[in-house]
Amino acid sequence: MSLPAVETLRWEGGVDGTLHLLDQTLLPGEVRFRACRDANSLWDALKRLQVRGAPAIGVAVGYGVVLGARSEGPRDASGAASAAERAAAYLESARPTAVNLAWAARRVARAARGAASRGSDAASVLDASLSEARAIHREDVESCSAIGRHGAPLIPDGGGVLTHCNAGALATTGIGTALGVLYAASEAGKRFEVFADETRPLLQGARLTAWELSRSGIPVTVLCDNMAPSLLRSGRIGCCVVGADRIARNGDTANKIGTYGVALAARAHRVPFYVAAPMSTIDPSCPDGPSIPIESRAPEEVTRPFGVEAAPRGVGVYNPAFDVTPHDLIDAIIADRGVLRPPYAESIARVLAGRPA
Amino acid sequence: MSLPAVETLRWEGGVDGTLHLLDQTLLPGEVRFRACRDANSLWDALKRLQVRGAPAIGVAVGYGVVLGARSEGPRDASGAASAAERAAAYLESARPTAVNLAWAARRVARAARGAASRGSDAASVLDASLSEARAIHREDVESCSAIGRHGAPLIPDGGGVLTHCNAGALATTGIGTALGVLYAASEAGKRFEVFADETRPLLQGARLTAWELSRSGIPVTVLCDNMAPSLLRSGRIGCCVVGADRIARNGDTANKIGTYGVALAARAHRVPFYVAAPMSTIDPSCPDGPSIPIESRAPEEVTRPFGVEAAPRGVGVYNPAFDVTPHDLIDAIIADRGVLRPPYAESIARVLAGRPA
Repeated sequence: MSLPAVETLRWEGGVDGTLHLLDQTLLPGEVRFRACRDANSLWDALKRLQVRGAPAIGVAVGYGVVLGARSEGPRDASGAASAAERAAAYLESARPTAVNLAWAARRVARAARGAASRGSDAASVLDASLSEARAIHREDVESCSAIGRHGAPLIPDGGGVLTHCNAGALATTGIGTALGVLYAASEAGKRFEVFADETRPLLQGARLTAWELSRSGIPVTVLCDNMAPSLLRSGRIGCCVVGADRIARNGDTANKIGTYGVALAARAHRVPFYVAAPMSTIDPSCPDGPSIPIESRAPEEVTRPFGVEAAPRGVGVYNPAFDVTPHDLIDAIIADRGVLRPPYAESIARVLAGRPA
Repeated sequence: MSLPAVETLRWEGGVDGTLHLLDQTLLPGEVRFRACRDANSLWDALKRLQVRGAPAIGVAVGYGVVLGARSEGPRDASGAASAAERAAAYLESARPTAVNLAWAARRVARAARGAASRGSDAASVLDASLSEARAIHREDVESCSAIGRHGAPLIPDGGGVLTHCNAGALATTGIGTALGVLYAASEAGKRFEVFADETRPLLQGARLTAWELSRSGIPVTVLCDNMAPSLLRSGRIGCCVVGADRIARNGDTANKIGTYGVALAARAHRVPFYVAAPMSTIDPSCPDGPSIPIESRAPEEVTRPFGVEAAPRGVGVYNPAFDVTPHDLIDAIIADRGVLRPPYAESIARVLAGRPA
């Protein structure tokens, strides 16, 4: 048994329903859900990373637009569509890097506007929004499975696989992206050990990746981020697989801070480096890595790990949440539509145009 | 004012004296000294990293051989020399990677044996041991200053300097090695900002490097280790300077885990990467990096940072304390005898033979 039994979020009820988010800041110690009944509450959950991971953020925000539109108590269809658009813009402000957030928010707002333009009433506009959010949710589950199916053949049988941060079931509403590939490879009978970078400052690797892999019975070893180059040098790693928060048209990929260093070390030791992500993570409006906005987060994440004062007061802090891995360090992008290979400008253009990878 | 006013350790009294170690595990929160009156107590302090940094370890262990020999209450000169040899062998077992430890322990034991062979009594052998330990201490202070003098011209005026772990005053009994170069450059009027990798798992960068640089008035910014590649890519770093725990004859250098990743990223962005270390860190018996023993430390350092359970129980842990940076990634080795340049097999052989760098 290696498919993860993890519920990252769920919507309960109809248009008047509630979004329940697994609070990932409490893992691995505690499994507790946070109920969101308005957009403010979801915005706060996004900012605190109670829900995180580009695909999961997309799904959550899809429902968030429904919450936000509903809270305004719109009187007619046009008012409901405008409320959905306001909610989308508001939720987009929570985190700038993951493109799935804006993509999902705008998609639901567009569905609301579409319903309004067909002359429905406010209730029907909210219904249409919820349907769209549910469609995004369903597609995310399916695209994780497709990524797993396409990527599994790339995973070597035997040896080690290195991953960074959490691009697993917890980062999506399905089996995950990078870890989805590993779950699928494991289901296909391959045996391997996963090495999980702990991923400072918030330790998503140690807390989340190690947790969900352990529950699924896949052997996992945790290491500090700065140990990955030495591990790659040791010859124990057959490939690296990571997720993505935004992929530019040329293949440059923003992902959790530290991914770039893993890619550099992998290349130095000729270990294949793969990015796994759904099509919704590709930003067709973004030409290259330098155009991707990078979120900076609070200094305390670095200086006060777990509330303990680790650095003297008053020192400067550098805390970008993401870095960009240039496309030439990426051996393949494992997407739901297939495995993309360099040159990415061409393979990405091809799948964006709806042609096969 | 930029010379650090930090006392890493001191010996108080004569042969019957006490070794006082600044307990570095308590920094930056508390400045407290641990008094060691026997070799067991020093062994424990070494193991816990209350005293750390290859040069400081060397000085501490020099005094530790005196403590160990004295504790046996030797009756004659030969007994005192044998007791010193036993203490040296025992202290060498505390940590395997830093070559300064074995070097200093054996040097003091050799001085004891030399005194015994000259027909002295037990007290004179202990006196000779203490003199040798004091000489090592004095030489360490001087060699830090020499490293600073030789290295300061390499530091660019303006911009940023990246360092990893702590190779500062706290890692030596002088002004430090890597940070010694920075203190000397600052004294010479150069202005720059230091970026200090926090250095998981034990955060010597955030706790120690940031602390001593702040006290000296040099601007310092802390970052997580996995942020260094992104910082190097940003163009804000003019050079990297780190310390060393053991340098092989070909220039391969063992240093705190994570150093290798910094060197790889520095090379990718054509940023000069310097190692600063005294001659005592060069191991003439070691041909290359793969011959250097690497200490593995307790899994809890990774999984329970600050006593907080960060990873699920039962996961594997990879926790090497050091990695090896291959000589071809090192632009210069700044030693007390001068700046060594590639090919290191030749420049190291030259200085080991007593010729100029």
